[in-house]
Amino acid sequence: MESVIIFDTTLRDGEQSPGASMTTEEKIKIALGLERLGVDVIEAGFAASSPGDFEAIAQIAALVQKSTVCSLARAVPSDIEAAAKAIAKAPKKRIHTFIATSPIHMEYKLKLTPNKVIAKAIEAVRLAKSFTDDVEFSCEDASRSEMPFLKEILSAVVEAGATTLNLPDTVGYRFPNEIGTMIAELASFIGNKAILSVHCHNDLGQATANAVYGILNGARQVECTINGLGERAGNTALEEVAMILKTRKDLFGNLTTNINTQEIYGISKLVADITGIRPQPNKAIVGKNAFAHESGIHQDGVLKNPETYEIMRPNDIGIPENNGLVLGKHSGRAAFKDKILALGYKNISEEEFQNAFERFKELCDNKKEIFDDDIRAILGEETTHIPQIFVLECLQVSVCSNGQHCSAVSITKNGETLSDSALGNGAVDSILKTIDRVSGQCSTLKDYKVEAVTSGKDALAKVVVKVQFESNKPAIIGHGVDIDTLTATAKAYISALNNYFDMKDLISNKEGMCL
Amino acid sequence: MESVIIFDTTLRDGEQSPGASMTTEEKIKIALGLERLGVDVIEAGFAASSPGDFEAIAQIAALVQKSTVCSLARAVPSDIEAAAKAIAKAPKKRIHTFIATSPIHMEYKLKLTPNKVIAKAIEAVRLAKSFTDDVEFSCEDASRSEMPFLKEILSAVVEAGATTLNLPDTVGYRFPNEIGTMIAELASFIGNKAILSVHCHNDLGQATANAVYGILNGARQVECTINGLGERAGNTALEEVAMILKTRKDLFGNLTTNINTQEIYGISKLVADITGIRPQPNKAIVGKNAFAHESGIHQDGVLKNPETYEIMRPNDIGIPENNGLVLGKHSGRAAFKDKILALGYKNISEEEFQNAFERFKELCDNKKEIFDDDIRAILGEETTHIPQIFVLECLQVSVCSNGQHCSAVSITKNGETLSDSALGNGAVDSILKTIDRVSGQCSTLKDYKVEAVTSGKDALAKVVVKVQFESNKPAIIGHGVDIDTLTATAKAYISALNNYFDMKDLISNKEGMCL
Repeated sequence: MESVIIFDTTLRDGEQSPGASMTTEEKIKIALGLERLGVDVIEAGFAASSPGDFEAIAQIAALVQKSTVCSLARAVPSDIEAAAKAIAKAPKKRIHTFIATSPIHMEYKLKLTPNKVIAKAIEAVRLAKSFTDDVEFSCEDASRSEMPFLKEILSAVVEAGATTLNLPDTVGYRFPNEIGTMIAELASFIGNKAILSVHCHNDLGQATANAVYGILNGARQVECTINGLGERAGNTALEEVAMILKTRKDLFGNLTTNINTQEIYGISKLVADITGIRPQPNKAIVGKNAFAHESGIHQDGVLKNPETYEIMRPNDIGIPENNGLVLGKHSGRAAFKDKILALGYKNISEEEFQNAFERFKELCDNKKEIFDDDIRAILGEETTHIPQIFVLECLQVSVCSNGQHCSAVSITKNGETLSDSALGNGAVDSILKTIDRVSGQCSTLKDYKVEAVTSGKDALAKVVVKVQFESNKPAIIGHGVDIDTLTATAKAYISALNNYFDMKDLISNKEGMCL
Repeated sequence: MESVIIFDTTLRDGEQSPGASMTTEEKIKIALGLERLGVDVIEAGFAASSPGDFEAIAQIAALVQKSTVCSLARAVPSDIEAAAKAIAKAPKKRIHTFIATSPIHMEYKLKLTPNKVIAKAIEAVRLAKSFTDDVEFSCEDASRSEMPFLKEILSAVVEAGATTLNLPDTVGYRFPNEIGTMIAELASFIGNKAILSVHCHNDLGQATANAVYGILNGARQVECTINGLGERAGNTALEEVAMILKTRKDLFGNLTTNINTQEIYGISKLVADITGIRPQPNKAIVGKNAFAHESGIHQDGVLKNPETYEIMRPNDIGIPENNGLVLGKHSGRAAFKDKILALGYKNISEEEFQNAFERFKELCDNKKEIFDDDIRAILGEETTHIPQIFVLECLQVSVCSNGQHCSAVSITKNGETLSDSALGNGAVDSILKTIDRVSGQCSTLKDYKVEAVTSGKDALAKVVVKVQFESNKPAIIGHGVDIDTLTATAKAYISALNNYFDMKDLISNKEGMCL
């Protein structure tokens, strides 16, 4: 069996999705999930882009054992030094450096001659090589670059020590046969001197097809993200590549990946919960409807012989068989602990467990049936290590459709209770304005979303807010879960506040990168 | 220039997305939007599947002038007769009949010999031909059928009068080169005796790539849906095919479509609003982030030369240049009317205009800036012709995070005011339970979602509920828009109630179909 290396860039290219900035703690949760999933290389960020990225990469490098931890770096010495420093503690580490190679990018963006570009690439790879043996080099905008130049620069960087060569379709312009042709030609040129990699964008909806045609033509690394997150229309979706290789063995022969596909469902949910970017119901593999057979004829066929309409089983990606209905009022601590472990929360402290169990018992009093997703929602909240400077004590809201909306909020700030009230245009507006009065902060609400965690009138409400506390700085995400939508709203806003105070000195309007 | 026929099945295969059942009125809005978009063939439903589908097709057939209106029908006489009756009033009409042709489907689902399948197909096409010249025949599960059998049955149905031959990848199993090979062989076999069509499912994320490789190999019709809706992981996305043919003219030579791409943004929003199924932000073409450049390097490049990172312009699909900020407190009736027309609401009555204008002025009192999306949200509500049996008069809600949640609701039912109050586990629960008391109905809430229409604490809240009023019947969608989230919730639930009373006799657990 030959393996295709799965290089996940959810934490780097994925985090460049507008409005997906994550806290260090959230990035760590995702990194550990990716390791459990069996990802070979985790691109944990772009160390030089911001202190927050640097910090997150360093912490991930110290925690992740099995996967290689990678930082991106432009082909400039300071970037490469920052990357090296950030990944220093990882047992397996990679530096990923890049420079643009297309005529349009070299002329208009870099304003460098092709020879100068090659010189910078060699210098960057050599420097990276002084920190780690595992060096990846990317030709930004490779798919619009000239083949003779690609060959020239790739030869040079292989000579300088690059072990992986990545050929991104930066603008998402290409079609499967075009990517296939490019990779085939380079594969025969490079031979076994380095591993070829594809990194495809989805602007024309071709990211997965392109990546797969790269593999069919000799690429042995795929760069991808959970749920296909990423700049603009996103990247190749990891879950699609993994399930394609599993489902279409007839096309891929001996090729396999190290992905444990049963972890796909859990990590997809985790990433969606953290970023607030949920796959549409008709998203392949991980969409809510991906395995739902609506039509009568289909259902009938599936009952007669599943293969009439099913090419994959829900269980292949870890969707629980019984819809995840498990626990109830009478479930004890042991059953709850088993469930938590089964959901992949292995490193939970005794205190976190105790808090989560109390919330679970409270929920049992208000809700008839408790599902896996309810437990996940609770755990997501109770396993935070962000200092809780502000804590919601009490919320009262009075809504009158023909009159005024007002809220009263009590918050403890470092132990001291603060209370105030405010009118608003609608309940949400009045709650957020009241919290602003109490906290002394003033913010812009960039996004507000409520979802029911499961179905039923008494379902838990999950609220995601994206809040900008300083102009020209990225919005901060906050989450709140409660049986009451408005209480969940207040919790979400207060969680954004706490995240903001925790990240304040680390966030900046960082530069992203452009593969 | 040669044209590729765009066959939209949003109203048939798209409506089979779980939880996307639409009212007749909503289907008509979408059909008129598809006509404006330049769709060649609108598959308006599956006439024999339910009285609701029949009614919707018949009304669409009577209204749509430019596009061909099509109904699906199994290869059985009663289905074809129902289809013929439903589309009778359309100026251009098509009957689309199908039968499965793969060994597994013929043996396990149909329990018919291949010869019997051919006989039924011929009979069905002949009968359809007696009602209209324009007859499409589909080989269900074509991509898992045997080539000799495909040739045999296709020859037979062409002989019987079929003018379009559709080859679905029913289970979404195939890859672009496989679809390409199948179409190329059939294109040389069929020649110009009929138009070949592709219908691809997205289970492995290949629906658009597959459809495009069908075109490259001779297919001249593509079956697709807005936002890629459809059974399971959905179908080929219309917007992706249209933009691929526009952006990659170098690959497609003279091939073009009749799609006016500037209408894509509007119809995508309309379908998302009606179904409550919103494309993920990283959806190609129509996702919220599809044209957003987050990273510093990208932004810099775009400023220096847009072509460094942009292969399409937002304006190509009709995204308003100025973010749609247009109207304010001082805008008068004329400006408001212009805006409505620009948004594509051409057939609005004087009364609807008046109601919408009043809501707009009210909104101006509560919200600083009014965006296109605010206007769309208001218009969506004010242009309904569903009888408003229940109307919200007044809502009061009292929320106390440490105590009880209760609501008081007054509703007029056919002019009479009814009021009641109820406790609930959370504000939403208490509102819905109170409305149940008042209306005398009892329901299951299947889904609940709130989105902010734009950004800002005082943004309009748009609530979508999916409510099941009778077990074993499909859920009904309700929408509510208000500056206050809870008021929007009450409105959404009441709109579901009104929709239910309007559709009650038409909805049944209809059979879908299975291309």
